[in-house]
Amino acid sequence: MSKIKEAIRRIGELDRNLMEKAQERLDTLTKPQGSLGRLEELAKLIVGITRKEDPDFQNKVIFTLASDQGVMEEGVSAYPQEVTTQMVYNFLRGGAAINVLASHIGARVIIADMGVDGDLKPHPRLIIRKISYGSKNMVKGPAMTKEEAVNSIESGMEIFEDEYRKGIDIIGTGDMGIGNTTPSSALTALFTGRPVEEVTGRGTGINDRTLRNKIEVIKKALELNKPDPGDPLDVLSKVGGFAIGGLCGIMIAAASKRIPVVIDGFISGAAALIAYHLEAKIKDYLIASHCSAERGHRVILEHMGLTPLLELGLRLGEGTGAALGISLTEASIKIMTEMATFRSAGVSERTD
Amino acid sequence: MSKIKEAIRRIGELDRNLMEKAQERLDTLTKPQGSLGRLEELAKLIVGITRKEDPDFQNKVIFTLASDQGVMEEGVSAYPQEVTTQMVYNFLRGGAAINVLASHIGARVIIADMGVDGDLKPHPRLIIRKISYGSKNMVKGPAMTKEEAVNSIESGMEIFEDEYRKGIDIIGTGDMGIGNTTPSSALTALFTGRPVEEVTGRGTGINDRTLRNKIEVIKKALELNKPDPGDPLDVLSKVGGFAIGGLCGIMIAAASKRIPVVIDGFISGAAALIAYHLEAKIKDYLIASHCSAERGHRVILEHMGLTPLLELGLRLGEGTGAALGISLTEASIKIMTEMATFRSAGVSERTD
Repeated sequence: MSKIKEAIRRIGELDRNLMEKAQERLDTLTKPQGSLGRLEELAKLIVGITRKEDPDFQNKVIFTLASDQGVMEEGVSAYPQEVTTQMVYNFLRGGAAINVLASHIGARVIIADMGVDGDLKPHPRLIIRKISYGSKNMVKGPAMTKEEAVNSIESGMEIFEDEYRKGIDIIGTGDMGIGNTTPSSALTALFTGRPVEEVTGRGTGINDRTLRNKIEVIKKALELNKPDPGDPLDVLSKVGGFAIGGLCGIMIAAASKRIPVVIDGFISGAAALIAYHLEAKIKDYLIASHCSAERGHRVILEHMGLTPLLELGLRLGEGTGAALGISLTEASIKIMTEMATFRSAGVSERTD
Repeated sequence: MSKIKEAIRRIGELDRNLMEKAQERLDTLTKPQGSLGRLEELAKLIVGITRKEDPDFQNKVIFTLASDQGVMEEGVSAYPQEVTTQMVYNFLRGGAAINVLASHIGARVIIADMGVDGDLKPHPRLIIRKISYGSKNMVKGPAMTKEEAVNSIESGMEIFEDEYRKGIDIIGTGDMGIGNTTPSSALTALFTGRPVEEVTGRGTGINDRTLRNKIEVIKKALELNKPDPGDPLDVLSKVGGFAIGGLCGIMIAAASKRIPVVIDGFISGAAALIAYHLEAKIKDYLIASHCSAERGHRVILEHMGLTPLLELGLRLGEGTGAALGISLTEASIKIMTEMATFRSAGVSERTD
């Protein structure tokens, strides 16, 4: 726990002076001022986060964390639980959507087992940080112990730190875990105060009957466990998941090192909610890549005051939206650092 | 004119059979069906356009056409007219936003002078297709003759065809021309029937006084010239511009060769309106990269029933939004062609 507190203590303010300088620089470039809209805001934000006047994204890393959910016993998904494990192998072989999109944007993907229900075959690129063999069924008690909750966040931090030593300029967050929209909806309802119905969606594509069941399951879990929204670790332990805890840890560790975090969809959003309720300053380090088709996600983004870059009806997870968001963010940085100025290009400025 | 008619005649239907096959293929990939939202729709559309089951985007080309507007005499912009020429030189030196973004996505940029007011220094990468030294002032008469209108479209077609011989898989359209939102607003009002006020914006960032003047100028030009919305060439000649005509020609030529066209912002939209009113089928070949902050653009997209991929408050032109849109389209194709299937990856399918 002291590790988490220490990292949170190190999360600083954005560097407003450098952001002003970045704005002045953007305004000297050969384009009408502000005409690249959010790309210009993004570039400025990256300068404020990184404290680098010429940031560049040589090292783009997407962390995709996997874990299973005990609540799968309650029949909340259209897919069987073994898909979590099968998809981890798919990630390692490079056949999943996140592999394709990470390659498209020139990022590397880090796959970690945070608590898949089963022992995965060792693989040189698989990080094993298993907290347990899946979380427990939250309609029968807490999803994990408080120690496991702390452990999942700290493990996420360590996964980030190990990779940070190899070089990281920007990260994306992603997840894999059949059933993981169920804890994410529970977390969202709890932290935002919105009714469970409003923040619970169809995940991988469940039918009406399964959706009604999923809503009842979440309500039951919240009633039984009574998580305290004022205590994010209590919430994580009672109705969270291991990948969610791990992603929360990655966000905290990245922010403490002034590394921009491009968050993916609903599960990453739920992890961000925990981090945000631990320390609101983390919001400045988060870039919302997209708004998921999974309905609770918009509620999360509004709660934290984040505006998504993309609205493409994505709802896959894995970090797929984050990959696209990283590419847009990189484009914004190149605009700031590679364009000519009015002066250097000999272009006349406005006359009015 | 027969050249234009001939190309329009060759614009075919989307290949619905191949699109169905593409949908079936997308549904076998290791992701819940439809979970990549618009990326999946895009991939399917590209198959329908290109008639290729495995399209790839080795050759991405952005056409940025430049021309001056005679209506600049009326004081409709915040920038002096010489900026058009200066920016062409900036494009050729690689210092503009479109150079940076084209490089980011791995596209080449083709720069053409369609009617800049002055003789540009020759440059190996500058295509000269000058219809005239800027259009005429449309508040005093037609912006160009009917012959010049035809010539601008046919020149655009030839610019495309010359490049097509070197290899093209997808194109983006872009523009440069101080004052060019003024003819674009006139075209938009005319083709959509919306009041001039609703489709006229601040362009490069004009103040309230200049905006009021710009609106009056457009109204005057429409009243004086009385363009016939049923005759797109009449409209182009009376209140259009040379780059707009050229972009219209590029779109027609590309569609006739089954090459997808990613359109940029307001000026590309105005060019698309002309093409669309010449032949509505062209709409199937157009991908709207973004919705510009320039207010008339949304009206154009709604008129043609196109949904933009991005809403980032861009209003620069040059093809900048198109570049970002091409990258998303390429991502969609890679998803379709590079991902593993449930069967090949040994992943279980849904159980409900």
